[in-house]
Amino acid sequence: MTVRTDLALEAREMIDEKRSERLKYKNELPDGMNVNTKETEHMTITDITIESKEAERIIGKKKGRYVTIEIKNPELNTNELQEAPAKALASYLTMFISGLNKTEPEIMVAGLGNRHITADSLGPKVIDKIVVTRHVKNMNRAEIDRRLGSVCAVSPGVMGITGIETGEIIRGMISTVKPDILLAVDALASRKTSRVNATVQISDTGIVPGSGVGNHRMELSADTLKIPVIAIGVPTVVDAATLVRDMLESAGASACIEAVKESKAADMVVTPKNIDIAIERMASVISGGINMATHAGLDIREINEYLM
Amino acid sequence: MTVRTDLALEAREMIDEKRSERLKYKNELPDGMNVNTKETEHMTITDITIESKEAERIIGKKKGRYVTIEIKNPELNTNELQEAPAKALASYLTMFISGLNKTEPEIMVAGLGNRHITADSLGPKVIDKIVVTRHVKNMNRAEIDRRLGSVCAVSPGVMGITGIETGEIIRGMISTVKPDILLAVDALASRKTSRVNATVQISDTGIVPGSGVGNHRMELSADTLKIPVIAIGVPTVVDAATLVRDMLESAGASACIEAVKESKAADMVVTPKNIDIAIERMASVISGGINMATHAGLDIREINEYLM
Amino acid sequence: MTVRTDLALEAREMIDEKRSERLKYKNELPDGMNVNTKETEHMTITDITIESKEAERIIGKKKGRYVTIEIKNPELNTNELQEAPAKALASYLTMFISGLNKTEPEIMVAGLGNRHITADSLGPKVIDKIVVTRHVKNMNRAEIDRRLGSVCAVSPGVMGITGIETGEIIRGMISTVKPDILLAVDALASRKTSRVNATVQISDTGIVPGSGVGNHRMELSADTLKIPVIAIGVPTVVDAATLVRDMLESAGASACIEAVKESKAADMVVTPKNIDIAIERMASVISGGINMATHAGLDIREINEYLM
Amino acid sequence: MTVRTDLALEAREMIDEKRSERLKYKNELPDGMNVNTKETEHMTITDITIESKEAERIIGKKKGRYVTIEIKNPELNTNELQEAPAKALASYLTMFISGLNKTEPEIMVAGLGNRHITADSLGPKVIDKIVVTRHVKNMNRAEIDRRLGSVCAVSPGVMGITGIETGEIIRGMISTVKPDILLAVDALASRKTSRVNATVQISDTGIVPGSGVGNHRMELSADTLKIPVIAIGVPTVVDAATLVRDMLESAGASACIEAVKESKAADMVVTPKNIDIAIERMASVISGGINMATHAGLDIREINEYLM
Repeated sequence: MTVRTDLALEAREMIDEKRSERLKYKNELPDGMNVNTKETEHMTITDITIESKEAERIIGKKKGRYVTIEIKNPELNTNELQEAPAKALASYLTMFISGLNKTEPEIMVAGLGNRHITADSLGPKVIDKIVVTRHVKNMNRAEIDRRLGSVCAVSPGVMGITGIETGEIIRGMISTVKPDILLAVDALASRKTSRVNATVQISDTGIVPGSGVGNHRMELSADTLKIPVIAIGVPTVVDAATLVRDMLESAGASACIEAVKESKAADMVVTPKNIDIAIERMASVISGGINMATHAGLDIREINEYLM
Repeated sequence: MTVRTDLALEAREMIDEKRSERLKYKNELPDGMNVNTKETEHMTITDITIESKEAERIIGKKKGRYVTIEIKNPELNTNELQEAPAKALASYLTMFISGLNKTEPEIMVAGLGNRHITADSLGPKVIDKIVVTRHVKNMNRAEIDRRLGSVCAVSPGVMGITGIETGEIIRGMISTVKPDILLAVDALASRKTSRVNATVQISDTGIVPGSGVGNHRMELSADTLKIPVIAIGVPTVVDAATLVRDMLESAGASACIEAVKESKAADMVVTPKNIDIAIERMASVISGGINMATHAGLDIREINEYLM
Repeated sequence: MTVRTDLALEAREMIDEKRSERLKYKNELPDGMNVNTKETEHMTITDITIESKEAERIIGKKKGRYVTIEIKNPELNTNELQEAPAKALASYLTMFISGLNKTEPEIMVAGLGNRHITADSLGPKVIDKIVVTRHVKNMNRAEIDRRLGSVCAVSPGVMGITGIETGEIIRGMISTVKPDILLAVDALASRKTSRVNATVQISDTGIVPGSGVGNHRMELSADTLKIPVIAIGVPTVVDAATLVRDMLESAGASACIEAVKESKAADMVVTPKNIDIAIERMASVISGGINMATHAGLDIREINEYLM
Repeated sequence: MTVRTDLALEAREMIDEKRSERLKYKNELPDGMNVNTKETEHMTITDITIESKEAERIIGKKKGRYVTIEIKNPELNTNELQEAPAKALASYLTMFISGLNKTEPEIMVAGLGNRHITADSLGPKVIDKIVVTRHVKNMNRAEIDRRLGSVCAVSPGVMGITGIETGEIIRGMISTVKPDILLAVDALASRKTSRVNATVQISDTGIVPGSGVGNHRMELSADTLKIPVIAIGVPTVVDAATLVRDMLESAGASACIEAVKESKAADMVVTPKNIDIAIERMASVISGGINMATHAGLDIREINEYLM
């Protein structure tokens, strides 16, 4: 009954917890690991870099950079509160993309997951809201808005419905479409219910197996796809076993864990009651951020007009 | 942090558990409470009657009859396995309905819940699959299949979307439509993840407040609606707090409960990953059972033809 | 093969056409009928009043007031273009409502039609976007935004799915909910493809039988429901037979009409290819207008926050 | 204002019509074109082969074989009536596939079209009902049902949403998945409203541009994809201009056509009111036929169990 998390932020918190038990002091980080945290009115933003094998081993996440945007009180739903994380996502995406030094890069957005399973439908829902332009740019028409980047968007589906590894489908599409960069959007699993549908993780490491609700075995990364992969993930569920284990530990009841292991909660997930609405909202946040980052200079209002 | 269950079956199990701790013996029932259990190849059927105030108090459920159909290995999905519970539901509904001694009763089926929230959408989904005939019967045409009963079906929606108590809407529709019997279908909460989307409870007590995922405050019963109400419920979620509390107790870690109380899991629910498919399946089981019971003599194949 | 239109505007155009054939002059109106047309940047607004039996007979529409908002170039989709008709609808609704001289009226919005048939789904889709407040107002809480009116919203469904006349369901709900005014939203049929999903008709005459795609036989009006009914309709289809007949006439080929009569186009409808998107858009326009008119003082931005 | 049809059957009918005017006799066919018609209780099946350049030119369809299954009285919806065309489709698909002489062919099913536009959603809806096995076959497990073929299924989406030519996406997926045969399912346009959602065309020529509602420019055929392509099409709309033109001609009013040309009906389509239900039904017919043909030996009941 191991803790399952796709967030580097949480992997890091777990180190602290373990150490605090052993060494009675917190916040000592392994060499080659840096963590910077920034507070804004509506968000807590944590920027983690993992640079050494040692750090990789301890935290159990691949070398690379992980930025986590946590939305404060997601229950208050003002336009402002929706735009803030979208803009933050846009600026970090811009940073990741410009770091790749491609001039006018052609970008493919891949929405992973199963549109027929709410908790796994974030990726496909984001794709429906992306301002795609690749087909128009290719026409080289004069009247095209020059501020638009070249963007295409695909929903590869899941193996249970296609009979094909998600990675194989994407590799195939990359072979003909030849984008410079892949943005992969997926639903993740978190340790803490408070982070569900209220957190966005952006990383340059690609997506590692066993994510969120879905079952995408083949790693999607520069290693497997031969182009840079920027992963955007949102925890949409907490694994039920993880929730219980965490609660037992924090309740100092580690003793019970063995007993609880037997429970049939294994293939159950914990979600908020309003998950359907929350997923729609996060799909708007993610698509908004991607649209702003890939079509620099367009504001949210203009982007919405392209989408209407 | 109290255990939440809408199943009389589970309320009864809890008595046993408490007693087993106190008195070290199981299965002693309060006076005025009878429990009969029947095993079939695909189902366990428990028939509970509560007849005394004492029994009412101890089990915390209203006087009346509660039949629970538990599907064994719901993960195997053969047609047979879908038809068995639908037929069992049909026969118990027929028993409840004929017990009301109405000749050719006009039946209204009400699907409670919110069609936009998967875990609460069972009721509205059932309504979409009901063979409605009231409008045709009223035409008194010669060619009408005489085996058809008089059935109408409504989805009152939820207060968050309508701004109206579900009970007020139904009372209003009853005042003009004047059915003889109301069948109310709703999503419930269970204690055990193993029962989620695998159990049907039929009772003649109406639906009491605080059910499942939704928030239907006004009781729907003969007292409030002035016509007999037969409730059909399916647990679609386990309250996260309940899951944890149960696991702690069964792990003999009652000590931790206090500590765990603080957890923010309160408004979270535990669901299977495949809830969207499971709800579709249970909607077919429930609508199948209702269609067979209300249109006596039609078999599943004929009913599907009416629905196509 | 008669022309089918639910728009008073078009009924009036037809008089002109007939006359122009007979009398070779246009625009003479029967006594007791007034028509005022207003052009704005984005809309043409026609305000028709029918006051005499004679006018009623000639135009074939009930005595009352019919305001039609036609959106110019609906294909350009700027936010401005979506807000203009919503605001125009809001101001005419405010006019109709205040004309009824009710202080703080309780308003029920009824979304007619079948949510599972795209061309008939406008009403239910509007209901999903209404800011409902009746349940909150009833709590009489101090913190409630005083600018909010008392609004509830219902989707009665269609007879094919409920087995009940739409009018019976609404009459029943009115009997318990006791609203002061009913706003009935429905999909209509138009004569001209150019008006499909680009026109809104508001009238104080209620909804007369045979509207749009659906099949709502019982008239919903002050006569049948005993409270004032304001109807809001949007043409979502053109009856195929009507389209052809119109084209033949305008092509001066009236001769062919007889022959064409035989065609099997009777139960076919003409829709734009993008009907699914167009219906979503019109649902936003209608719900936006209703929300602004019923919650005076809230602007679109604030309303969206209530809905998020 | 040209007549638009994707059915070889209709292209052929048009020759007859032209000839009947000129030569006053019907049914003379160009050399290299054969037509065989078979009547069954529930269907009319027409088998057309085009073998000469001359026939290609006259009929305006590529060399190859076109089988059309027309369902008689599609309005009666018995299980029998749904199974008959599915079985007919299965047997013709089996014929086309076995004609390709591949042993245990790996088959990719591509569902073309836009799942968010009802009239164009047939392809994606079919994909959701395909029994996919490629991923399981690859595991080479002992317990696998040996009667299952190797099938995968993809929904490439449409250019407006992906920004990529449908053909490019499919070519890419073929390059990694390496299927032996492609079955391409798409919505078509018909001339006759009576054929909408009541006709299936199977051909070995691939899909030629300008199909149905969608906009799939690149031809999907052995020429462009380097593997055999079997196209399965269902007319879901009649182009409004085509409907009118046809009605005028059949009414002997060809004179009016010029005048009518001006009409704005160009981008309108004619559909039955119940299109949403009709598309669901045809998606079941097509997926049923494909599942039976690709998993030889499984009957409909067993296939449904795989899908549940």
